[in-house]
Amino acid sequence: MSIPILKLYNYLLISIQTEIDDKTAIQFQEDLLDKIHKTGATGVVIDLTSVDIIDSFIAKVLGDVITMSDLMGAKVVLTGIQPAVAMTLIDLGIHLQNVATALDLEQGLIKLYQELRV
Amino acid sequence: MSIPILKLYNYLLISIQTEIDDKTAIQFQEDLLDKIHKTGATGVVIDLTSVDIIDSFIAKVLGDVITMSDLMGAKVVLTGIQPAVAMTLIDLGIHLQNVATALDLEQGLIKLYQELRV
Repeated sequence: MSIPILKLYNYLLISIQTEIDDKTAIQFQEDLLDKIHKTGATGVVIDLTSVDIIDSFIAKVLGDVITMSDLMGAKVVLTGIQPAVAMTLIDLGIHLQNVATALDLEQGLIKLYQELRV
Repeated sequence: MSIPILKLYNYLLISIQTEIDDKTAIQFQEDLLDKIHKTGATGVVIDLTSVDIIDSFIAKVLGDVITMSDLMGAKVVLTGIQPAVAMTLIDLGIHLQNVATALDLEQGLIKLYQELRV
């Protein structure tokens, strides 16, 4: 099952709420880039509130999809990163530079709005 | 994999984008009612834009979950119902009375806001 991507005005919202396997992660990467292309979205919020743990492959895919989205002109905000996930990301050397983060979905949308003004 | 439920202020947003099996549908029903209880959400938007076809069991679960949410005090708006889905619902005698509908997620949120004013 693929991860649903919700379009809300100029933004795309994604909430990852279950453990995802490698195939789902790759599928998500493709789906998100495709949806950015189709909708012309300017911002993306990826909510990780329900993600307790992250492995190196998923972390890498996540880092990649953020860079790719940025290339395509969509700003990504990550929200709800839990302590264990933050530690894994840094341990793996994925520093997510230039990535905005926020506490939750609402704050993420506010952050996008502040940065993009659209 | 369960269907993610996004919380945005007082509303819950759900986008069903893949064919769901019976088990996932039942799980979704439980998850949604649980989330309404936990968050005190006053409105729910269920977006069916990507659902091409619906079987009798899923249609029944959908009808039930709307009635249940209503009992718990959360107003449900269904959005993006495709022609084939509308036909199936009526053919199966699921009339979804008192259920608001709208074209897409944005319109669904506007409808909730107009009805609830919160």
